[in-house]
Amino acid sequence: MNQTNANQGGGIDRRMVVLTEGATEPVGAKTATSVIRYRSDEVLAVLDSTQAGRTADELLGVGKGIPIVASLDDVPQANTLLIGIAPSGGRIPAPWRAVILEAIRRGMNVVSGLHEFLSSDPEFSAAAAEHQVQLFDVRKNNERDCAQRQGIREDCLRIHAVGHDCCVGKMVVAIEVAKGLQRRGHDTKFVATGQTGIMIEGDGCPVDCVVSDFVNGAAEKLVLANQQHDILLIEGQGSLAHPKYSAVTLGLLHGCMPQGMIFCYEVGRTHHHGMEYMPIAPMDQIMRACETMANLMYPSKIIGIAMNSRRVSATEADDERRRMRDKYELPVCDVFRHGADDLVAAVEKLKSELIR
Amino acid sequence: MNQTNANQGGGIDRRMVVLTEGATEPVGAKTATSVIRYRSDEVLAVLDSTQAGRTADELLGVGKGIPIVASLDDVPQANTLLIGIAPSGGRIPAPWRAVILEAIRRGMNVVSGLHEFLSSDPEFSAAAAEHQVQLFDVRKNNERDCAQRQGIREDCLRIHAVGHDCCVGKMVVAIEVAKGLQRRGHDTKFVATGQTGIMIEGDGCPVDCVVSDFVNGAAEKLVLANQQHDILLIEGQGSLAHPKYSAVTLGLLHGCMPQGMIFCYEVGRTHHHGMEYMPIAPMDQIMRACETMANLMYPSKIIGIAMNSRRVSATEADDERRRMRDKYELPVCDVFRHGADDLVAAVEKLKSELIR
Repeated sequence: MNQTNANQGGGIDRRMVVLTEGATEPVGAKTATSVIRYRSDEVLAVLDSTQAGRTADELLGVGKGIPIVASLDDVPQANTLLIGIAPSGGRIPAPWRAVILEAIRRGMNVVSGLHEFLSSDPEFSAAAAEHQVQLFDVRKNNERDCAQRQGIREDCLRIHAVGHDCCVGKMVVAIEVAKGLQRRGHDTKFVATGQTGIMIEGDGCPVDCVVSDFVNGAAEKLVLANQQHDILLIEGQGSLAHPKYSAVTLGLLHGCMPQGMIFCYEVGRTHHHGMEYMPIAPMDQIMRACETMANLMYPSKIIGIAMNSRRVSATEADDERRRMRDKYELPVCDVFRHGADDLVAAVEKLKSELIR
Repeated sequence: MNQTNANQGGGIDRRMVVLTEGATEPVGAKTATSVIRYRSDEVLAVLDSTQAGRTADELLGVGKGIPIVASLDDVPQANTLLIGIAPSGGRIPAPWRAVILEAIRRGMNVVSGLHEFLSSDPEFSAAAAEHQVQLFDVRKNNERDCAQRQGIREDCLRIHAVGHDCCVGKMVVAIEVAKGLQRRGHDTKFVATGQTGIMIEGDGCPVDCVVSDFVNGAAEKLVLANQQHDILLIEGQGSLAHPKYSAVTLGLLHGCMPQGMIFCYEVGRTHHHGMEYMPIAPMDQIMRACETMANLMYPSKIIGIAMNSRRVSATEADDERRRMRDKYELPVCDVFRHGADDLVAAVEKLKSELIR
């Protein structure tokens, strides 16, 4: 936890420019979109020379009034550059190197969630030393502890967002349900497990960058570190059915031992994000896999379904919601379109069943 | 592959001392046991001052005539020290540091499969430089590629050893079945996925030390690199039900996409190895989980059961074998006690069903 706290740049007065050069759209730039959604007070501008003059709101659907600019010259008061994408593989796009170096030379700190660490790059680290700025590699970690399955509080309710693919909104579902529970007076913590969640929440663990033998242990440590709260909303990663990321997904699921899961999916998504030749397995099969695998570690069930309906109309979304409710006999909602109340109620119901 | 080839010390004339100080028994020193079993021609002695004067065969059940010695002084002709244990967490036991340093000072190379790399230790690396010896960290890797699910040969049969726990013999089952298939004239490759397998086979990938986002990809690369063979016997890791290691297990299972699995278990084992307070889930449940999860990626089934009957009598083993055959209607054998023929035949049967 200390490690990741130190690496995400929290506690500093951040006046940020979010870099999304050539990729300012909600899914490709999901880090940018979510940081702007939940930390808009810290974001001065988005940097994308191909979209300069427009606003974040127009292209990302969040960040009303936040301008898209062509150059760091346009935002002289900024003190931090945040890398706003998280591509598969996590490498730094070559054309962005010049922008990162320019930010460093201007005395700006740089926050990155990429697998390729800025601080391990000789050119970046030399420039940072020269200009006395900090490079925050949010994914950097030194997790080396295996799961132990000891000291787990039975009276802390662990809710985990799972899903049928990566990039379907598991993080925002966990955040919105946590906020809803907090509004209802529950002592609830959003537990971040990925770079964007950590940038938003200020702590957490980047489980997808942990050495595989220690993923379960890193997830368990997140539980141990936060179980003083009554309810944990634990961000999910990838999918048990994802060809690339299923190892991360299962280690996290087993390490955090949820009593309840919220299943997240995007309406109309048929193929894996970034692998358009790979069909996604039927949703029933993936839901069964989630329950089968969770129950190998701890009694667990899916208590609700979060639909991401961004690509369909309001009417289509409502139809889909009814269809899914009837089929699964579970609460179903799009946390942005319908609010998260139904999922909040499902968590409260599970809590009343399991804990006193 | 190059990386791991370079890291395992293959191709060098190795005259080895295997270090098991204070831990010379078959499970705790499973690396030692397996290296001696399959590379006995390269092993001059086992180093354990608490057991000096006995032989490897007496304590490990393998290595007839290989002496256990108290000091490197007793084996002046040795040129390599091999660390013979793989503890959970993979750290170097403190009392072994002196022995490792002494070996380096004597001009011996050191081969280690621990998570804590010898080459990253300032004292070891300085000593190695001074005495011009090589430190082979078998687990060291720089895997950074996600799985792609492209270019997979349909006519290469991929068989994967899975199991109900770690340390039940998945590696030896894969090796013995591969040897059996080779004897029957099949172009078969044992694909190593852990440090001991790599030390024996001379190539492979230490998947449990790969960053979790890239485990599936690393396993897939092993398939791509070896699918010129007709049959691959791919070593398994951990268990889908293991609290510590399930992330590794699933990433490997999904990355290597087996058409057939051999399920390995130890007769009488009721609790997870190294976690004696954690009961192992019922075998049926774990077998179902293996098939459920494998089929999310590629059509797959369990084609045979490998029992490890080392703790029971020959009569008990035969009774168990009959019981399991009747229950699962699958071939069942202990590859050491009964030979691997039944499993070899099961692989041949699957090959004839799937490939021409």
